Amino acid sequence: MKLVWKAFSAMTRGIPVLLACLAPLICSADEGMWLFSRLPLDQLEKKYGFKPDGKWARHVMRSSTRISTGGSGSVVSANGLVMTNHHVVEDILQKLSTAENNYLEKGFFARSRGEELKCPDTEINILWEIEDVTDRVKKAGGGAPDPGAAEQARRAERAVIEKESKEKTGLHSEIVMLYRGGQYHLYRYKRYDDVRLVMAPEVAIAFFGGDGDNFEFPRYCLDVSFLRLYEDGKPAKMDDWLRWSVRGTRAGELVMVSGHPGSTQRLNTVDHLRFLRDVAYPSYLELLYRREIALQQFAIEGPELKRIARGDLFGIENSRKAMRGTLGGLLSPATFESKLRQERKLQAAVAANAELGASLDDWERIRHSMDASRKFREEYIFLEGGRAFWSTLYRSARTILRLADEQGKPSSDRLPEYRDTRLPSVRMSLESPAPVYPALEKAKLTDSLTHFMKVFGAEHPYVKLVMAGHSPAERAHELVSGTSLGDVDARKTLLGGGREELAKLADPMIELARSVEPDARAIRRKYEDLVTSVRNEAYGRISSATFAATGTAVYPDATFTLRLATGVVKGWKEDGRDVPHHTKLGRAWELAAEREGEEAYTLPESWRKARKKVGADVPFNFVSTPDIIGGNSGSPVINREAEVVGLIFDGNIHSLVLDVVYTEEQARAVSVNAEAIIEALSNVYGMDALVKEILGGRK
Amino acid sequence: MKLVWKAFSAMTRGIPVLLACLAPLICSADEGMWLFSRLPLDQLEKKYGFKPDGKWARHVMRSSTRISTGGSGSVVSANGLVMTNHHVVEDILQKLSTAENNYLEKGFFARSRGEELKCPDTEINILWEIEDVTDRVKKAGGGAPDPGAAEQARRAERAVIEKESKEKTGLHSEIVMLYRGGQYHLYRYKRYDDVRLVMAPEVAIAFFGGDGDNFEFPRYCLDVSFLRLYEDGKPAKMDDWLRWSVRGTRAGELVMVSGHPGSTQRLNTVDHLRFLRDVAYPSYLELLYRREIALQQFAIEGPELKRIARGDLFGIENSRKAMRGTLGGLLSPATFESKLRQERKLQAAVAANAELGASLDDWERIRHSMDASRKFREEYIFLEGGRAFWSTLYRSARTILRLADEQGKPSSDRLPEYRDTRLPSVRMSLESPAPVYPALEKAKLTDSLTHFMKVFGAEHPYVKLVMAGHSPAERAHELVSGTSLGDVDARKTLLGGGREELAKLADPMIELARSVEPDARAIRRKYEDLVTSVRNEAYGRISSATFAATGTAVYPDATFTLRLATGVVKGWKEDGRDVPHHTKLGRAWELAAEREGEEAYTLPESWRKARKKVGADVPFNFVSTPDIIGGNSGSPVINREAEVVGLIFDGNIHSLVLDVVYTEEQARAVSVNAEAIIEALSNVYGMDALVKEILGGRK
Repeated sequence: MKLVWKAFSAMTRGIPVLLACLAPLICSADEGMWLFSRLPLDQLEKKYGFKPDGKWARHVMRSSTRISTGGSGSVVSANGLVMTNHHVVEDILQKLSTAENNYLEKGFFARSRGEELKCPDTEINILWEIEDVTDRVKKAGGGAPDPGAAEQARRAERAVIEKESKEKTGLHSEIVMLYRGGQYHLYRYKRYDDVRLVMAPEVAIAFFGGDGDNFEFPRYCLDVSFLRLYEDGKPAKMDDWLRWSVRGTRAGELVMVSGHPGSTQRLNTVDHLRFLRDVAYPSYLELLYRREIALQQFAIEGPELKRIARGDLFGIENSRKAMRGTLGGLLSPATFESKLRQERKLQAAVAANAELGASLDDWERIRHSMDASRKFREEYIFLEGGRAFWSTLYRSARTILRLADEQGKPSSDRLPEYRDTRLPSVRMSLESPAPVYPALEKAKLTDSLTHFMKVFGAEHPYVKLVMAGHSPAERAHELVSGTSLGDVDARKTLLGGGREELAKLADPMIELARSVEPDARAIRRKYEDLVTSVRNEAYGRISSATFAATGTAVYPDATFTLRLATGVVKGWKEDGRDVPHHTKLGRAWELAAEREGEEAYTLPESWRKARKKVGADVPFNFVSTPDIIGGNSGSPVINREAEVVGLIFDGNIHSLVLDVVYTEEQARAVSVNAEAIIEALSNVYGMDALVKEILGGRK
Repeated sequence: MKLVWKAFSAMTRGIPVLLACLAPLICSADEGMWLFSRLPLDQLEKKYGFKPDGKWARHVMRSSTRISTGGSGSVVSANGLVMTNHHVVEDILQKLSTAENNYLEKGFFARSRGEELKCPDTEINILWEIEDVTDRVKKAGGGAPDPGAAEQARRAERAVIEKESKEKTGLHSEIVMLYRGGQYHLYRYKRYDDVRLVMAPEVAIAFFGGDGDNFEFPRYCLDVSFLRLYEDGKPAKMDDWLRWSVRGTRAGELVMVSGHPGSTQRLNTVDHLRFLRDVAYPSYLELLYRREIALQQFAIEGPELKRIARGDLFGIENSRKAMRGTLGGLLSPATFESKLRQERKLQAAVAANAELGASLDDWERIRHSMDASRKFREEYIFLEGGRAFWSTLYRSARTILRLADEQGKPSSDRLPEYRDTRLPSVRMSLESPAPVYPALEKAKLTDSLTHFMKVFGAEHPYVKLVMAGHSPAERAHELVSGTSLGDVDARKTLLGGGREELAKLADPMIELARSVEPDARAIRRKYEDLVTSVRNEAYGRISSATFAATGTAVYPDATFTLRLATGVVKGWKEDGRDVPHHTKLGRAWELAAEREGEEAYTLPESWRKARKKVGADVPFNFVSTPDIIGGNSGSPVINREAEVVGLIFDGNIHSLVLDVVYTEEQARAVSVNAEAIIEALSNVYGMDALVKEILGGRK
């Protein structure tokens, strides 16, 4: 469960673990996360006898949503109803809950429009238009003296193009780097910042089986929720939305997934993969271990602390389980051998043909960038990435400070995350009314400062600067107790005040962020010059060579932008046994009885009461072969008529290696069946109006 | 809870984290873990008007027990009845339990001698005689050319002395290095290897409040159990045992603790403490984090897996909580400043007076040994310390292999843990009928091999040697499925067979241990030559200089040998509030009601039924100031008449820094009150015969 994609906020953007390697792939089987502007039409026709036209593609594209909590979704009514996963809105539920009113535990059910609840700092984007701007961007970097300068020039040009587009169309505009610099596409989105919560079931059924069953199958989860897009205070009127299927799914049937896979590393060079295997992934996993224990220790002190730590803890459990799986796959010499063979083939082609435009030096450059990264990645991650400061309050302090500094510059000179096109999102997060819990902030910050001291040693200048003569616990207490940034009004005031106002303010968290700022910016620049830019240039050439050498239809690695994946409903073989392609609703009650007394298998009261009303044989969850990854959470599963047959919510344990290499032998996407959603809405929750709205759109 | 001292078996003996630094201390207040051969008589008389004579000391010493699971205990009847903590016998309960009969959960209650259960591989030792052999040991190392050779010579001489002593007296004989080489004492023990379980309550009341309340106070734990020593198949007849107090304890009253503190680091040099703070402790903590998560993930799969992982998990939770506290204390600059001032004073004295026999070079030598340790401690810990192989089966393989090699040498030439005096314990552990669970072994080994690959990188020669072309999961599966060492009869056969037999055997676990052996031995030797020996020599001189400079009564750092600690029953102030010195039995039921639904606060059925029969005002747990540390678990708390008034089972959270520095401001020992034990035995469990046996010895 939880195929969300956490970019970890702008602060940690760029951490190697999350960097997408955008080299293209030569596809086989159901592999592929396809651009909507470049669907694999021939392949689809050949394999499935299906040839979607431009209208079909545009309809599905404009019915697909990207949610700022890190997931996907789909529009499923003319009145702006959006379906996604429960776990995609978990963060929202957490922010809306209080000790007395815990929506995560009790669920949320709006029985009328008036009861729909505004979601704090949530935005939803719908991809509206795609334009190829590769030539213009590449040209901008053309005459630069070194990779760093070229990268800066391209970035500036991207800011200009985005701004022009926004001014011309009024649409939110973002340039996406694809094929790691092979291409640049301008994506225009319709942006909705008034999003309301319509329905979310109890977490006990959304995440039935808990952490233990996460990434497993068979499953029995109603991991669904509904939101609504509003415009001018009214439900948004939509031209495109997905109809509901009346047929359901059958084994072997073609299904497609339209969603936003976050990041893959499929054509990384072998040296790059080694780096991930030996350095980046294991360190990240150790980070998750320590944070998971820190949060468990916080939560153990009582039910209210457990409640407020829950969001963070769920996210970490999910990442930890995913990362253990991914690393487990990478540690298999077999995975590496196949990658090595593939690389040697490409290198031989490159060496034999100068016209491909790459050379073996490009692999060397990537290797050197890894060596550089090993040397100062920890400074980069802890100071600029913010790993030393695991705190919402610190993140606010740093954002307020940077915003004040960056706003004074022309948009194209700013750090990319503070360009004009990004400012609405930055402001929205600072102006969020979501509560900040001081006790949780102290516990988290104490742990991350302890970690920081571990990595650099207590007597390192960075540590002395940050700790100011205190122990981690003392320093965390001083910072969290002393800052006013927990108060949304205080943040709003500071946002309006500008640099002079900030300079006068005696806020320890702002002071800490300010004292770290020069080192953080310096190390970021160094990292971008010696690692990111060098790598992008070299990958760009390798990627063009692959294009030229194979001449095949290829797809870029995932970038948290809209893709279409295709495949079939299909079980798999596990230790010689067949794992069937779907489960049934009735089994949930049986399992609850078998695992009685275990919190993870306790059905909510609504389900315990509804047993007799629910069809025991209705398909509940199913597996299929489309190529998905974190970020696809909440993606609709559709048939060739573009009707909803399911809702992606997980990949099985074998799918965790998809980060690096696609395999359809055992890897599967896990979905909630569309029929189970209707069954539960009708017969467990009695949400007849919602059912009518959804099915009303049925052909 | 769980002040046990895990030497982590012979395999990990010597890991820096657990090394005792034996420099002496100048004492104030109730500080001090005193040798029974050197009790602080003047101090006791001055402060408390109490002057125990030699008879008193010998009586208490011979009534105190050391338990091979890592804790302390006391003889409390003429028929060999031993009282200790529940958590000291937890490992034994785990080994005796099955899926159907879980003594940890249900408790164990022998209603007659015939029902008492033999404890697998458990031995109990009672300190019988102490002899100072410092001159003889030091003389042996006198003419050696370097610290490494001197250390080897002293070790050989120690083996000779131990052997002579055993032959002469028949008593188990061990030489203890005190004051880090300042003194060597020969300790003779009466050894009991037939130990039987008499009574253990349900873990739910022994560990009421669970991990969350561990190291906290107020507490409500019946953390007690009773064992019995047998000789020739009959209950052992004892001349010395502790009587039970009829008076209980009052605030401010003198109490004493006779037990086996495991290890302290109180007079480490500041450089050595820096090393612990920046390197050893944080790495150890990260190890605990990853292992805790690995075990949680194993346990989450179902109740039986939860049961079999429980012992390992409890131990890790306890160490993790203790280590977090200790490190938290060390990360306080205040702690360091005080240590630094103390060190500068001593250095000034040493620099001013050549007759003290030390020089500033000794501090430099210790610093160099730290630098050396940084360089290859990971090779040492992972290969020789066994951190790469978190597996009972691997440990058996390595022990069987080494035993076969070492037995062929004269005792004084062997690795210390294979000397004649140690062989009975080594054999006992290999011949243990305790079950080994393959699924648990695989999970643990997979995790530790993954960790090993993280630390060295997948392409390191050590890793290639160990992994043999497999991923961690594949390799763990192959090793655990392929070995016969899970079967106690197979181990017994191999023990008898010798080297030739072993050489013929095709057992993958034995083969792995054999392939690692040359590197492991080499790195051990290197570590001992460049780190341990250098450090011991330098500390020996610093320690002698401290003696000479202060001329005060001092005590050595803890060495898991018998010590007496003294203090008073006393609460403390926390954030301005008074924490009272004791809790009452009745509060346990109230708390269970307030925290209903939380597993950690669920009383066992026996207690739920007994509420009306139990005196609500009987003191349950209390705190006092004696200087204790891990290893003191199960120590009796006695009054000046040497009567039992309580049973140590924990230190509070403030006591965790005692590892490094004593403070009586807030640090407290936590005990079960003697009256609560009788109340529970009588009115919850109806164990009247046991109560009669205990109180029969009352004056």
